[in-house]
Amino acid sequence: MRESSPIKGVFAPVLTPFNPDLTVDQERLFMHCEWLLSQDCSLAIFGTNSEANSLSVNERLQLLEFLVDRGLEPTRMMPGTGCCSIPETVELTKKAVNLGCSSVLMLPPFYYKGVNDEGLYKNFSEVIQRVGDSRLKIFLYHIPQMSGLHFSIDLIERFLREFPETVVGMKDSSGQIENIKVVLHNFPEFKVFVGTESLLLSTLRFGGAGCISGTANINPAKIVRLFNEWKTAKAEHMQNEISEIRKIIEGYQMIPAIKKVIAYYRNDNKWARVRPPLNELPQNETDTLIGKLDFLKFKIPPVQC
Amino acid sequence: MRESSPIKGVFAPVLTPFNPDLTVDQERLFMHCEWLLSQDCSLAIFGTNSEANSLSVNERLQLLEFLVDRGLEPTRMMPGTGCCSIPETVELTKKAVNLGCSSVLMLPPFYYKGVNDEGLYKNFSEVIQRVGDSRLKIFLYHIPQMSGLHFSIDLIERFLREFPETVVGMKDSSGQIENIKVVLHNFPEFKVFVGTESLLLSTLRFGGAGCISGTANINPAKIVRLFNEWKTAKAEHMQNEISEIRKIIEGYQMIPAIKKVIAYYRNDNKWARVRPPLNELPQNETDTLIGKLDFLKFKIPPVQC
Repeated sequence: MRESSPIKGVFAPVLTPFNPDLTVDQERLFMHCEWLLSQDCSLAIFGTNSEANSLSVNERLQLLEFLVDRGLEPTRMMPGTGCCSIPETVELTKKAVNLGCSSVLMLPPFYYKGVNDEGLYKNFSEVIQRVGDSRLKIFLYHIPQMSGLHFSIDLIERFLREFPETVVGMKDSSGQIENIKVVLHNFPEFKVFVGTESLLLSTLRFGGAGCISGTANINPAKIVRLFNEWKTAKAEHMQNEISEIRKIIEGYQMIPAIKKVIAYYRNDNKWARVRPPLNELPQNETDTLIGKLDFLKFKIPPVQC
Repeated sequence: MRESSPIKGVFAPVLTPFNPDLTVDQERLFMHCEWLLSQDCSLAIFGTNSEANSLSVNERLQLLEFLVDRGLEPTRMMPGTGCCSIPETVELTKKAVNLGCSSVLMLPPFYYKGVNDEGLYKNFSEVIQRVGDSRLKIFLYHIPQMSGLHFSIDLIERFLREFPETVVGMKDSSGQIENIKVVLHNFPEFKVFVGTESLLLSTLRFGGAGCISGTANINPAKIVRLFNEWKTAKAEHMQNEISEIRKIIEGYQMIPAIKKVIAYYRNDNKWARVRPPLNELPQNETDTLIGKLDFLKFKIPPVQC
């Protein structure tokens, strides 16, 4: 039997702020992490919205160490560690486990397309054996629109049979609530996080564990509140409120838009910067975006230093 | 004006042999490189068919150094150096330039999809400026079926305007001869390599520079002969002959199939191994594949030690 894990709730794939020379602005990142934790939002650093694949493996290793050394609670962290190559995935995952991170979010090797279940199984199996640590807890990262790959029901079943203590859940960023429903129907104890808070209430009703969503970087408190009160009569109303904000953001390029929202509401334009191949949100789009959020009286509570 | 470059002909994206523990079998790789050079085939190490993205950046840095130290002629090498992150692309590219490689084949950052021309431009521009070396010659690697990204005519034009000495050509693995035709019509001096020898004659007739093809790992001499004699009366016949072999291979998963062909014809089963997420070609498929090649009296000339 799989041991029960407390990992649930709302995670932000933490945005990565950059200095003018495009190095990571570590202090700003740390403060943002602290603020998210203060909102009861956990930290999925090195996610898609973190521009993690635009960071080198060495940068990620160093940054993870920095954040834990600086005092972040590793049990609240689920870093992304899945690379295209097994040695790099193993190196990052070992580092996360050794620093005490509660779990990791693992992309499949995303270069080759048309990879079958057997190939994906071998890849994860090799990683798990090489890390060789019973503390390792893996969440599979299902994001076919970027990886071009799928975790099938057969493959999940095989993972749960062969590595029941290690493969504990999944983040589903496909946007297909039907997929989450089917996965949870087959594996009720599998911890499934949805990739958008728009589907949080539905996911929780199907038995899901929470959400890991880019917009949790700007709207954590209200998303966390829905997670805490989803069984109350106010749940539908709370869902509609957070979905409204999410829908506005989805009208723009997600990562540049969220960064601009932080830059604007914190009056800190350094947050706007992205690494290529992404582009900063243009000023005219930023203006319409902020106009829509202002109309809803959107705010980001201040960072407490 | 762009200085004229002698880079043309037939390149193999050199297959990477693995030891039982999945480390790179360096000596076998070196011998295969030597053999390819002896067939007048140049070396595009770290390509898609090399399983380059299944190697860590550190493995690639070390391997490149090993091959040059061991005596391979760097001017015959066009290593793949494009990673998802700018720092890693820069590190690999600098190493290739410093070792004297004639050029590099650069994948676009392939994690994010829907990246626009501006984002791709900034990515390559940043890499070129950081490498900061006039010896750098870049071939853009156009392989939308893996990267999900496209090099548009507008983007190529911008590269040629801003970096005429550096962005010298492209490998087009899209399989769309129409794209090669359009690119060469717009930029007659751009050095375009096609990703399959099935389109070599057409590409040369449109003014292309040659081909970089996985099957050059097993059939280099005949592909090179077509390149050398493409203006002769025998060209169509030579094209048909090499296309026949290519078509057989295309009936299988390309990389595992080519590796099995080498393993069989060199009587060296160590060549069959692949890194996950790829799978070794199953025995029954290998049998039918070899049967078809044997029927055509296919052979691989021996490696001279």
